[in-house]
Amino acid sequence: MFPTNAWYVACTPDEIDGKPLGRMICGERIVFYRGEGGRVAAVEDFCPHRGAPLSLGYVENGQLVCGYHGLVMGCDGQTVSMPGQRVRGFPCNRSFPVVERYGFIWVWPGDPAQANPSTIHHLEWAESSEWAYGGGLYHINCDYRLMIDNLMDLTHETYVHASSIGQKEIDEAAPRTTVEDDCVVTARHMENIMAPPFWRMALRGNNLADDVPVDRWQICRFTPPSHVLIEVGVAHAGKGGYHADPQYKASSIVVDFITPETETSIWYFWGMARNFKPDDTALTDSIREGQGKIFAEDLDMLERQQQNLLAYPERNLLKLNIDAGGVQSRRIIDRLIAAECAPAAEPVTLIGGGAA
Amino acid sequence: MFPTNAWYVACTPDEIDGKPLGRMICGERIVFYRGEGGRVAAVEDFCPHRGAPLSLGYVENGQLVCGYHGLVMGCDGQTVSMPGQRVRGFPCNRSFPVVERYGFIWVWPGDPAQANPSTIHHLEWAESSEWAYGGGLYHINCDYRLMIDNLMDLTHETYVHASSIGQKEIDEAAPRTTVEDDCVVTARHMENIMAPPFWRMALRGNNLADDVPVDRWQICRFTPPSHVLIEVGVAHAGKGGYHADPQYKASSIVVDFITPETETSIWYFWGMARNFKPDDTALTDSIREGQGKIFAEDLDMLERQQQNLLAYPERNLLKLNIDAGGVQSRRIIDRLIAAECAPAAEPVTLIGGGAA
Amino acid sequence: MFPTNAWYVACTPDEIDGKPLGRMICGERIVFYRGEGGRVAAVEDFCPHRGAPLSLGYVENGQLVCGYHGLVMGCDGQTVSMPGQRVRGFPCNRSFPVVERYGFIWVWPGDPAQANPSTIHHLEWAESSEWAYGGGLYHINCDYRLMIDNLMDLTHETYVHASSIGQKEIDEAAPRTTVEDDCVVTARHMENIMAPPFWRMALRGNNLADDVPVDRWQICRFTPPSHVLIEVGVAHAGKGGYHADPQYKASSIVVDFITPETETSIWYFWGMARNFKPDDTALTDSIREGQGKIFAEDLDMLERQQQNLLAYPERNLLKLNIDAGGVQSRRIIDRLIAAECAPAAEPVTLIGGGAA
Repeated sequence: MFPTNAWYVACTPDEIDGKPLGRMICGERIVFYRGEGGRVAAVEDFCPHRGAPLSLGYVENGQLVCGYHGLVMGCDGQTVSMPGQRVRGFPCNRSFPVVERYGFIWVWPGDPAQANPSTIHHLEWAESSEWAYGGGLYHINCDYRLMIDNLMDLTHETYVHASSIGQKEIDEAAPRTTVEDDCVVTARHMENIMAPPFWRMALRGNNLADDVPVDRWQICRFTPPSHVLIEVGVAHAGKGGYHADPQYKASSIVVDFITPETETSIWYFWGMARNFKPDDTALTDSIREGQGKIFAEDLDMLERQQQNLLAYPERNLLKLNIDAGGVQSRRIIDRLIAAECAPAAEPVTLIGGGAA
Repeated sequence: MFPTNAWYVACTPDEIDGKPLGRMICGERIVFYRGEGGRVAAVEDFCPHRGAPLSLGYVENGQLVCGYHGLVMGCDGQTVSMPGQRVRGFPCNRSFPVVERYGFIWVWPGDPAQANPSTIHHLEWAESSEWAYGGGLYHINCDYRLMIDNLMDLTHETYVHASSIGQKEIDEAAPRTTVEDDCVVTARHMENIMAPPFWRMALRGNNLADDVPVDRWQICRFTPPSHVLIEVGVAHAGKGGYHADPQYKASSIVVDFITPETETSIWYFWGMARNFKPDDTALTDSIREGQGKIFAEDLDMLERQQQNLLAYPERNLLKLNIDAGGVQSRRIIDRLIAAECAPAAEPVTLIGGGAA
Repeated sequence: MFPTNAWYVACTPDEIDGKPLGRMICGERIVFYRGEGGRVAAVEDFCPHRGAPLSLGYVENGQLVCGYHGLVMGCDGQTVSMPGQRVRGFPCNRSFPVVERYGFIWVWPGDPAQANPSTIHHLEWAESSEWAYGGGLYHINCDYRLMIDNLMDLTHETYVHASSIGQKEIDEAAPRTTVEDDCVVTARHMENIMAPPFWRMALRGNNLADDVPVDRWQICRFTPPSHVLIEVGVAHAGKGGYHADPQYKASSIVVDFITPETETSIWYFWGMARNFKPDDTALTDSIREGQGKIFAEDLDMLERQQQNLLAYPERNLLKLNIDAGGVQSRRIIDRLIAAECAPAAEPVTLIGGGAA
């Protein structure tokens, strides 16, 4: 179960560079490609002729050509042409609203009439020249909500990422979760601690001493359908923490776009945006590599957790204070799913009567 | 669903050279081996003792010996002997009519009483010294009918085999499909075109100029249960095309024996018979290698098409003119399957009566 | 179906050396580890917090720590602590009776109240300094009873292990099966034969001539739930066979502990105990390597037999004299399973009455 009337990250531009990409999103088999004028398009990955996947074809003059018998598919799902055939009566494929923005391709797998690109959250770091971004993609066999839980409860860093970003003090600082409209925020502040290896590296990258106490923060923000952006950072202790002057801190935004493939698998777009040394591409690569290794530590845990949950469907999991971020996020998701499933309100005609 | 009262290619002689071969044909687990006098035999691949696959055993003195406890199986499915045991009461395995002919082992998975080896189609190219044959075997996860469709509509060459035998002119020459009894013929003739790479190679192999216009033909013949033989060739343009004198042409027969393993997987025996330079074994090898690469291009398409069809069972595929070959072939297959399923006609005794 | 009120071998000590081990036993996901004082412990491999497998965690100060969020699990299945949490109300995991003895970890997957470590069979060879033991572990996809059949009918050696321990004379010597209480014994004696390669090696290892006739014996003992210990050996012919003076013989005990993982897969602990040259560790290694290769020859046969049986569920297998060992062993297993499934006897209160 996932909200379908929502913008999900489908892929990154390099994935549709010169060739179509077949990818299942929320259970829908979709082919993504660049159509006329380089505009991104998304239609069902199913040739109306004989069912071949259109993603095995190619793009020619901004049109998607089926690699089996040459049917030319339009961005609207209507067949444009086919050698030797009249195509007017061909059945129409579904097409999906799709937008390229912020360095990602966004797709709306639900009702196209409700798709409004302006509802894609603004991502300042993706547009400003003061920021740099690097990231990657993992395929993970787990329910997308397990990944949301993971990211909204960073106490797991102490255990899963013990050698990089984890530290005992995370466990000891109780997080605080608040909900405003459809946004859940779980914040944790740790004061006067020593920075773990990743942050010592970041401090050095900012030309700051890495062997002095720091204040550290993690502010996780969930927004529907399944995006989690996390402000993270450290400042030399006593300089104001999260609000410290930039000269005393190293900070960044952990970016997590979680796109369901099926009920039990996801496309996980992860990355990090930083507002220091934005032009240092070697640093970007180095951070990407480090983050990739850290986030890979979660894969096995999440997949094995998923298998356990499937094997013990009757067991109720605990909802502790540290789980509040995930619990509140799931509550919002449930509400959105329920709204999609609800029958549209019908107009009611009252007919006056006597005994009734 | 497949006809079972039919001769299918089960394997090639080299596959049962000195050892038994276990292979599922039309859903039946069968072990093939050379019995007494080197005659090929086929029985259920299931030891009546404890269910071990007989194909894990060995052949000794023309008898199949179970590799687990030494039961000796007869070609008729009756146990011959077993160390220390009286075997007369052992349950009988099914045995399958099987014939070695034309360089292939043919099996009849249905009712043995109806098996008549004379109904195996005559293959002139397999017996004449003027012909040479080379081929191979692919296992493909698709319904056998998808492969028949593939071969009865060669417009796909333009797309799937663009770099070898495909060319735009295939698309532009409408095919003509005719049906006679249980044989479907789809023929396409292209005139005054340049030969694609594979045929330029063949022209050179015939000591013919490869840089002049040619007439090209493709004549696909489906016969039940699932054999597709395709006459293909080119002749220097204006020399009579298909009917040109041999000195002006290069031609061959594409051989396709498609044997269902399960409802969604096949053993695909492909090859090419040619009537030029039949003694040039290096040429045979070179053609086999080239054809193997070309036919491998179909594998992914067919398997992914199959997955798409399983995912969208409710979608009706189009039946265009180019699909007529496959459509007509399926019609014949459906008729044969229906005939196998029909209850045998019962004799009717009419009893005269009054009021009835 | 397997008896659950029984001691099974779960693992060997080296498998829980310094880290927990997750292993499914009789369908139960269990984590094994060394708790306080190095005592082995076994609890459900499911963190009560969020369902992560506890086996992905680590052991610290004799306590199992979940690798996801740091929950500390007790050996009794009760959560001990969790950072920042009160754990008293946490649901209790199942814990399993577990014993370390004879170089193995034994687990009781059924009703803990019935677990009595004194019912683990005494293994003299595992405690005496006059014996040496070497063994290994295979995972095999087959019903555990197929492995019992295999070991209780050694005629298969003639076929499966033809190059090492098999020989024609095994087939020719009829085995004798006897049952006493819950123990099945199948014995075979072969007299005045030449030893096969493995036993020639063993004779040489005992400083005995290997090129003279021997008497050979195989005495297979099944005891519930699924243990098969086999006394095997050869003596120079005419010296008394099994009862010959040690100076004339080479003998050992083949050890087989078969632990069901699921209905169709097992953990197979195999090995060999010998009472000659017990201090020769190079010999132990050499025998282990040889036995490992021989026993690996059974893997494919058993897995393919299992697949055949699943494909032909309606076929009845034969129960010949050579199968008596397996048949009798299954009878005992069936009785134990039936006893576990039977409702406990209820006390009956008789109420005297008139007309009833």
